[in-house]
Amino acid sequence: MTTLTKIYDTSLTLLTDLYQLTMAHGYWKTGRAEQEAVFHLYFRKNPFEGGYTIAAGLEYALEYVRRFQFSGDDISYLAELEGNDGRPLFSPEFLSYLNDLEITCDLHAVPEGTVVFPHEPLVRVCGPILQCQLLETALLNLINYQTLIATKSARICTATGGDPVLEFGLRRAQGIDGGLSASRAAYIGGCAATSNVLAGKLFGIPVKGTHAHSWVMSFEDELSAFEEYAEAMPNNCVFLVDTYNTLEGVRNAIRVGIQLREAGHKMVGIRLDSGDLAYLSIEARRLLDEAGLTEAAIVASNDLDEATITSLKTQGARIAIWGVGTRLVTAYDQPALGGVYKLGAVRNENNEWEPKLKLSEQAIKTSTPGILQTRRFLNENGAVADMIYDELQNPLPAGNVLIDPLDPTRRRFLDESLQSEDLLIPVVRKGEIVHQQESLEKIRERAQQQLDLFHVGIQRHLEPHEYPVGLEQNLYNFKTEQILLARKLTQS
Amino acid sequence: MTTLTKIYDTSLTLLTDLYQLTMAHGYWKTGRAEQEAVFHLYFRKNPFEGGYTIAAGLEYALEYVRRFQFSGDDISYLAELEGNDGRPLFSPEFLSYLNDLEITCDLHAVPEGTVVFPHEPLVRVCGPILQCQLLETALLNLINYQTLIATKSARICTATGGDPVLEFGLRRAQGIDGGLSASRAAYIGGCAATSNVLAGKLFGIPVKGTHAHSWVMSFEDELSAFEEYAEAMPNNCVFLVDTYNTLEGVRNAIRVGIQLREAGHKMVGIRLDSGDLAYLSIEARRLLDEAGLTEAAIVASNDLDEATITSLKTQGARIAIWGVGTRLVTAYDQPALGGVYKLGAVRNENNEWEPKLKLSEQAIKTSTPGILQTRRFLNENGAVADMIYDELQNPLPAGNVLIDPLDPTRRRFLDESLQSEDLLIPVVRKGEIVHQQESLEKIRERAQQQLDLFHVGIQRHLEPHEYPVGLEQNLYNFKTEQILLARKLTQS
Repeated sequence: MTTLTKIYDTSLTLLTDLYQLTMAHGYWKTGRAEQEAVFHLYFRKNPFEGGYTIAAGLEYALEYVRRFQFSGDDISYLAELEGNDGRPLFSPEFLSYLNDLEITCDLHAVPEGTVVFPHEPLVRVCGPILQCQLLETALLNLINYQTLIATKSARICTATGGDPVLEFGLRRAQGIDGGLSASRAAYIGGCAATSNVLAGKLFGIPVKGTHAHSWVMSFEDELSAFEEYAEAMPNNCVFLVDTYNTLEGVRNAIRVGIQLREAGHKMVGIRLDSGDLAYLSIEARRLLDEAGLTEAAIVASNDLDEATITSLKTQGARIAIWGVGTRLVTAYDQPALGGVYKLGAVRNENNEWEPKLKLSEQAIKTSTPGILQTRRFLNENGAVADMIYDELQNPLPAGNVLIDPLDPTRRRFLDESLQSEDLLIPVVRKGEIVHQQESLEKIRERAQQQLDLFHVGIQRHLEPHEYPVGLEQNLYNFKTEQILLARKLTQS
Repeated sequence: MTTLTKIYDTSLTLLTDLYQLTMAHGYWKTGRAEQEAVFHLYFRKNPFEGGYTIAAGLEYALEYVRRFQFSGDDISYLAELEGNDGRPLFSPEFLSYLNDLEITCDLHAVPEGTVVFPHEPLVRVCGPILQCQLLETALLNLINYQTLIATKSARICTATGGDPVLEFGLRRAQGIDGGLSASRAAYIGGCAATSNVLAGKLFGIPVKGTHAHSWVMSFEDELSAFEEYAEAMPNNCVFLVDTYNTLEGVRNAIRVGIQLREAGHKMVGIRLDSGDLAYLSIEARRLLDEAGLTEAAIVASNDLDEATITSLKTQGARIAIWGVGTRLVTAYDQPALGGVYKLGAVRNENNEWEPKLKLSEQAIKTSTPGILQTRRFLNENGAVADMIYDELQNPLPAGNVLIDPLDPTRRRFLDESLQSEDLLIPVVRKGEIVHQQESLEKIRERAQQQLDLFHVGIQRHLEPHEYPVGLEQNLYNFKTEQILLARKLTQS
């Protein structure tokens, strides 16, 4: 039983947009319910003006597929819906079809923790078009958000330069699941621990926490509050020092830190949660060191993100552990990834795949036709370029050329000596999960190993290095042809 | 059984920050577990630079309180946690205390849909300090997010000037619950319907949807796609016209709209999802009207929010129905409310309430001591001012004066002829829910009625009217004294 099921007992099959069901009705009525189609889930731009993205959320998505089944309740609810003439929206025969429906699709996906780039499919769904559509909304919901947060977390961990980051976001997260799946994704992206105890229990993420301002306020004075806390929890002492006057708070913490040391315990550190964190951390460090508490760490929190952390580092702040909440779990500066799910091909009456594309006046929004896969080319130093190719265009040409989908004059020739691997792997075959559930530790390690494969410039926050991703030449030519064809067809 | 329980079968008691449990351990060990305390949940600033906030999320919060109970699993997990010396973080006796713990607190809250302002308590929790702390994180999580989204929704509905708003956000929401509770809160704020079918089923919200670009792409041409859709779903026809060329799409929709009319049905409308929505909606309206389809509505979507909607309205866009997704359900421009939960008072050894405050160098962050309530004063035209007062300062003085907590020179005298009502009502007594669950319709109506009580200027998006909220004079004086006292105390 995976996490999704531990949390959600109810049927989630209706966690979808109504238009998926009205289209399903349409496909079924026009006899096309079983027509095979391929959809790709991808995004068009790295979040946060960044240079990379870390895929996450697949475990939830697979569990959604595994559980997919309309309940009796679901069907009764759908039977009540009416169209604009007051008559039922769905016919009883169609509802009976849904009632018996089992997912028979094939899914390919990139493993969680993989570094990915715009236009590369994170998930590819192949199967009856009706089923592909019914999976769309939930797959987008589950993968968009966790991918966003894993990426945000990795950016924040880069900013601290290896100092541990604690995720403290639950109270400001977007709902229960905004808290739980954020803790999961933040851990994948590199956070060391969370304050969220349920995430600790469900995912095995280390949990951290000591006390709040209210603890201090509930005592007559701050020193008593620290002493009583140390008495009760001698093996978990990080004193929050800014309830009244921060540096006085540090002095009180030092008094108790010395008492702890004398009693054979150790003060883990102090926490700053307001004020000028650069100035206060430098002064606090000096006071702690002067008192011989050189191992006591300074934890800081207060609306931190990668920008404020970078600035504090530049100012010489003596912060060793970073507590990050709201801005991490809500991805404050860009709270949605903007992933999309687009039709790539349908199988026609002659049982041949027919590639499909959606036009847009913005080139970036025109989808790429075909059954797409991403091939990553590597040399001894790491990844050099990613090629999106169409499996229908097999065999691929020998002298591989990459063409930038948005600027065809940008091309890259790929040396034949390069190694390569395809990013999408089979995860569901005919509705059965074939991807073994991975431990969160393994996914987290993968994210780190993956980042190490790339030029460090992609991790820069300002004007990051742009890693080369392009279309395989035949695919590029085919897409261009199709766009011209589609535009001509619409001039009738 | 309320919605929360329908969705979440697992124990949510650990949906909290670890420090609540370490503090609980501390209170228990120092013999203060049962010491009575009062906490207030409030925010410091209206979101979105706006002039008001709509409270939401209480139903979930109450359900959380009702279900509160550590499971055997929860206790086993806590027993495994270790401190920095490798020894258990929690003693077995304490875990046994938790195992038997039942909530005995009193909660007061403002009903969902109430218009509220900064510093006014949304929830007041009174009871054993250990229990108050254990409820903190979940209450913040549940109320912060739904309040944020209800407010965002109301702002968007104001911008459309009464045109229906459809919430389409599920695919970009922050997790499953980010989708579900957003649909609920968006409906409270005034949205007319959602695309989220599970939200429709669980909350009774009207659901809307027709077809996507993929429907059109899966056919040989757009006209066939519309015709086949109309054949299958004649009572639910809103044609998405921008898959290839928008105005050509409108012409195809008109062809099918005429066929529908001839067959005794009615085309509900068309949907624009890209391009220049002002220009395209004006042209589409002209084409529809020329064809006699004057009742066909133009629906628009594409990253809309109150700012783009206002701009489109100013440009004379002929949009009748607005589909709003990502920017509503993630509250894109401010994805967290920033609500806090602060200690107001504790009962001392002499069984007397002792007011408490947290200092900050920023006046806005200094908490207000006491057991707080908000009294709203009204005349025949509506609300004139809100007074935050301390129930411990009873009886209140006759000539009521409001003092702006951030600028004491701003005062308002309240006429004795004014009516008044207190916003916080009892919702939990000794751990038992005493607030009857309200229908979502009723909450939604309340939000609208409440907004109508106030000067319309609070709904302005740019530089809104600032509704007067102040502290009752005795409370203001007491708070000022306490701040001075606390600052002196810390100069030791």
